[in-house]
Amino acid sequence: MKLATYKNNTRDGKLMLVSRDLTQTIEVADIASTMQQALDDWAQIQPALQDRYEQLNAGSLKAETFDESLCESPLPRAFQWADGSAYVNHVELVRKARGAEIPASFWTDPLMYQGGSDDFIGPRDEVLLPSDEWGIDFEGEVAVITDDVPMGVAADKAGDHIKLLMLVNDVSLRGLIPGELAKGFGFFQSKPSSVFSPVAVTPDELNDAWKENKVHLPLVSHYNSALFGKPEAGEDMTFDFAQLVAHAAKSRNLGAGAIIGSGTVSNKQGTEHGSSIEEGGVGYSCIAEVRMIETIRDGKPATPFMSFGDSIRIEMFDRDGKSIFGAIDQVVKSSIAK
Amino acid sequence: MKLATYKNNTRDGKLMLVSRDLTQTIEVADIASTMQQALDDWAQIQPALQDRYEQLNAGSLKAETFDESLCESPLPRAFQWADGSAYVNHVELVRKARGAEIPASFWTDPLMYQGGSDDFIGPRDEVLLPSDEWGIDFEGEVAVITDDVPMGVAADKAGDHIKLLMLVNDVSLRGLIPGELAKGFGFFQSKPSSVFSPVAVTPDELNDAWKENKVHLPLVSHYNSALFGKPEAGEDMTFDFAQLVAHAAKSRNLGAGAIIGSGTVSNKQGTEHGSSIEEGGVGYSCIAEVRMIETIRDGKPATPFMSFGDSIRIEMFDRDGKSIFGAIDQVVKSSIAK
Repeated sequence: MKLATYKNNTRDGKLMLVSRDLTQTIEVADIASTMQQALDDWAQIQPALQDRYEQLNAGSLKAETFDESLCESPLPRAFQWADGSAYVNHVELVRKARGAEIPASFWTDPLMYQGGSDDFIGPRDEVLLPSDEWGIDFEGEVAVITDDVPMGVAADKAGDHIKLLMLVNDVSLRGLIPGELAKGFGFFQSKPSSVFSPVAVTPDELNDAWKENKVHLPLVSHYNSALFGKPEAGEDMTFDFAQLVAHAAKSRNLGAGAIIGSGTVSNKQGTEHGSSIEEGGVGYSCIAEVRMIETIRDGKPATPFMSFGDSIRIEMFDRDGKSIFGAIDQVVKSSIAK
Repeated sequence: MKLATYKNNTRDGKLMLVSRDLTQTIEVADIASTMQQALDDWAQIQPALQDRYEQLNAGSLKAETFDESLCESPLPRAFQWADGSAYVNHVELVRKARGAEIPASFWTDPLMYQGGSDDFIGPRDEVLLPSDEWGIDFEGEVAVITDDVPMGVAADKAGDHIKLLMLVNDVSLRGLIPGELAKGFGFFQSKPSSVFSPVAVTPDELNDAWKENKVHLPLVSHYNSALFGKPEAGEDMTFDFAQLVAHAAKSRNLGAGAIIGSGTVSNKQGTEHGSSIEEGGVGYSCIAEVRMIETIRDGKPATPFMSFGDSIRIEMFDRDGKSIFGAIDQVVKSSIAK
């Protein structure tokens, strides 16, 4: 099943059912009017949505053309957004570039930060920020949405709580990170509002590409229209989504609609730290990693972070080349009115 | 104006208007059915609520007896919960006990962590946790709720966005903090679900005790029924609420209903680090500070953290001795069914 949220001048938008091929869409207000409402009562609502979804795909409903540019993030605002860093290659790279080793525990105990969730950006909307001197970067990720997860859930039960999957652009302000992390309280200003793909899908939509609580498909990023990365999201993911959900729920219940992210998708590709598209590799899902490779190789980074006007497109295709989630495709612009 | 949320077997509860003296309450579903709904449209809804509030206080409405034990936290779940650490004495104490100085920047740049907001605990509900070997502590705080705050708001404009005030028990798991902070991503498992006072009040309810974006009244904590602290919330608050809101909004918009906390209220009392009730001082708002004082004085802490069965009561009184927010009053218990 594929779901989206259309803008309708309300804070939570309106829930839309989207056909498998992303061409058709219908309102489902008689079943649930918002994504959060569907998630709040998922066990009851899911069968009705599934039934309608089958009718939509069969062409037996009067539908409208699906338009990704009308979408909010599937949850325009959420009650929980926790982002893991499950591709430890990404973490190792960042540390290596500053001459630090990663602690051995990073391979057994997930890194996760508490994100802010009150003001997500739409997948085709501009990312507005006051300054492009803060080291604006994208981070391409996969995320899951859960139903209610009880505190202390075991990792081998946590996968049952995964109801939907999305892509993420976890916008990061690299220039603000060192100062914030030095203060010891984690990210805040350095992680502005995040962005999610136009469409959220149930795991069954991925067929056998959803296996062992990982998505086994490449995450494709284009930076200023040039291919930037296509790492396999199923490879080098040290912690699967069930482990990440269990980590998040160790000392708290997670409310229905909780979003748990994978962290930046990153592959080692049989090398020390992976390689870029230019070098013939699968590339990366953020600018920071390219800069780290450059730093390790040349002593300093050459690729700049994003400037106002730069664009990023993040999407994922099935094995037949069809887009699964629609595309995050957006330009970074100044939030300050000229 | 005073507002509460009664439990009604829904995730967001039902909005209640509460009389100034906390004795009477009425439903206001014809104006707004939930606290979030009121905050989403505050400018439109506030006048109608205010009008009804005046009728309630005048005794001209058929009301029911207000019962704090029926309350959820005013927002049972929220889209944003960011907690400052504005009483730098608290931070200094924690560091001092481990022999570290605080960086000079801590006096000019607020510490703030991103909290999780999907599953707040009711003010009279048990705090359920899987283990009392994680160093369970309370943290008594004040918090504000904002309307929509634009990114980059100046501190001298940010105060205009403060619509409601509450008290907080920012439950902390001290035993999990060092390991998490060492990982560099801030708190997650060490900050389980938080608790807010039964009643949220508009700043005008505090009369001249709300001044310069601070609450100038003592925050009173009883631990296992014994007075534990009564520090002045208006003293030693290095950053006022307007500065904290502006800090939170530096690189993001804050959505209506965003909760911004003060951090643990802590006074220096003209001494190095304050003193306990037993020593004749105003005491503290968390166990950790007492342990720090003990460590600095005796080389090791003597007061244990909370065990299952221990209780904490947090409240604030006006200058006539009347409770303003009702009381957070709760017992810590095991989440694991026997």
